[in-house]
Amino acid sequence: MKFAMFQTPFMRPSRSPREVFDWAVDQAVECDRVGFTEYWIGEHATMTYESIPNPELIIAAAARDTESIKLCPGAHLPAYSHPGSLAVQVSWLTHVTEGRYILGVGAGAYPSDAVVRGLPDLKNNHRMMLEALEIMERVWQGEPFRFEGEFWNAGFPESDPAHPWRDVRPFGGSVEIAMAGLSPNSPTLSFAGSRKYLPLSVYAGEAAIANHWETYSAAAAEAGHVVDRSDLHVVRDVLVAETDAEAKKLAVEGGMGEAWRNYLLPVYKQFGLLQAMLPDHDIDTVDMDTLAEHVWIIGSPETVVEKLADIQQRTGGWGTTMVYGHDYTEDPKPWNQSLELLTTEVAPKLANA
Amino acid sequence: MKFAMFQTPFMRPSRSPREVFDWAVDQAVECDRVGFTEYWIGEHATMTYESIPNPELIIAAAARDTESIKLCPGAHLPAYSHPGSLAVQVSWLTHVTEGRYILGVGAGAYPSDAVVRGLPDLKNNHRMMLEALEIMERVWQGEPFRFEGEFWNAGFPESDPAHPWRDVRPFGGSVEIAMAGLSPNSPTLSFAGSRKYLPLSVYAGEAAIANHWETYSAAAAEAGHVVDRSDLHVVRDVLVAETDAEAKKLAVEGGMGEAWRNYLLPVYKQFGLLQAMLPDHDIDTVDMDTLAEHVWIIGSPETVVEKLADIQQRTGGWGTTMVYGHDYTEDPKPWNQSLELLTTEVAPKLANA
Repeated sequence: MKFAMFQTPFMRPSRSPREVFDWAVDQAVECDRVGFTEYWIGEHATMTYESIPNPELIIAAAARDTESIKLCPGAHLPAYSHPGSLAVQVSWLTHVTEGRYILGVGAGAYPSDAVVRGLPDLKNNHRMMLEALEIMERVWQGEPFRFEGEFWNAGFPESDPAHPWRDVRPFGGSVEIAMAGLSPNSPTLSFAGSRKYLPLSVYAGEAAIANHWETYSAAAAEAGHVVDRSDLHVVRDVLVAETDAEAKKLAVEGGMGEAWRNYLLPVYKQFGLLQAMLPDHDIDTVDMDTLAEHVWIIGSPETVVEKLADIQQRTGGWGTTMVYGHDYTEDPKPWNQSLELLTTEVAPKLANA
Repeated sequence: MKFAMFQTPFMRPSRSPREVFDWAVDQAVECDRVGFTEYWIGEHATMTYESIPNPELIIAAAARDTESIKLCPGAHLPAYSHPGSLAVQVSWLTHVTEGRYILGVGAGAYPSDAVVRGLPDLKNNHRMMLEALEIMERVWQGEPFRFEGEFWNAGFPESDPAHPWRDVRPFGGSVEIAMAGLSPNSPTLSFAGSRKYLPLSVYAGEAAIANHWETYSAAAAEAGHVVDRSDLHVVRDVLVAETDAEAKKLAVEGGMGEAWRNYLLPVYKQFGLLQAMLPDHDIDTVDMDTLAEHVWIIGSPETVVEKLADIQQRTGGWGTTMVYGHDYTEDPKPWNQSLELLTTEVAPKLANA
């Protein structure tokens, strides 16, 4: 199994932008150092907990201090940028990272972020994303075109022998694209399958993992694409320490517990997402102990190997675990130790399990 | 006199995006080290010589490796981004840089860049920039609003006691803004004066420097703003070496000469900009020797002090010289030495001249 980080980021609202920025860049470096394969960064304009406005700022800042890890917007929300500008910038970053780049795209989930862009609601966002992708793919060909769309106009200038234009084609000729799904029978993952984009399954219960793969692979098959179960990415809360007790203490009392208590639990309850994660539980009684036992994958390396092996068996498995980043800025050492234990202890033991 | 760098960047078209990126970040670090006060980075989508699509990628990458220098988009072209997205991102960067940030804005000068955004020409760009500034100033207040404009809709969400929004107000409460002018009686500099934005005079001959200040300060006075001549920034080609001969060799045979021969001279000729720089010359005979003698400010520290003092006297002076960045990637040492001589030798001698 490969490990990636998803830096949403779940930072305490009291953190300054500089603290968020520093943590996000330092975590990219740390993830690279311990052998994580990808580092995903969210894009949000108005949220207090998810507080990075543009993932590319982190990617640019981490590009020179990392060697192997892929740096990935997770996700860019094309509804909120001009796709011509975004296309040129994404292509440039594929070169700056020398190919260590995957473009996650999403429709956007927060109405407050839409308001900043003058959109009264999210109802057009999905269609905007599709039109933006169409435009970006055209720009990346680096050939003259003019496009008049429902939401944007765009193009690339005619060739002019006196003034050659910059080569805006991406590193390696194409941009690897990924999309995330959360809901059952996710239309987004179905669309991703039809385009052979990488599928990211945001955790919404174990049944959803299997369902997401079925949805994705069925659409891929219909479009004639060969896809592999190892392409599936699953986002989870994961924390490893020397002992189960240490891991639980670090999770409950640290950034993971803080984010769940003050942000995720209320939000998941409000949007009815918690029941799918805990199908056998009374949602009103869910507390940190419930999460530690049934939602988070935490414990000693042996415990985490066992839990991951069990879940893989029950769900059919996946290739890359995307570990949610959490706010351990005050004492990063045990959190970073957890990341290292995933690649040095958990991954090899899981391969032999 | 203060010194700044303007990293347009004039990089050879053969440079890869990674080489351009590395050079731009390294030069920010070097300029900070030698005591330059500001580092300006251009934004261009299609040009081969001016090859950075988004200055914020450089600012983010240089933020942690610099201490005192201000990092400045020079200029952002608001016509090409959604102003709501740009406002949130700019505000965030003012915090990431802890106030070391000036926002240069411009209408955009290249039709080919407009085509990428589906604009058939540049005729609306100035009005788009003004509307974008209006929107950005509103977003930076962090208060709910809805705006329906000619080019964009935007807003900020209503307060919600259950979900406080992120504080999107900039570091220190406001964003310092700058605008650049090139043409005589520049309407842009007049507008900048009326808003008390910082004035940047892109070199278009010595007469233009005086004219730009008159245009700017007259508009400022009319609007009731007190402005100071030391606010004026002037962009020039500058190179210092131990001797005049060394400086000329480094200029003509290095990146400065290359950019002028293959890009700037043909472009300036095409757009009729060269005569104003060389009012007493037959433009058809202009060569590197002419530029070295009459356009570039190059030579030993003593020569450069003398030239700057003369020009200051003839034009009325200015506060910050923005040195054009050039492509000295193959042997950065003498170029970096030139930057250091400006702050260690030229500036103090000029103060005493």
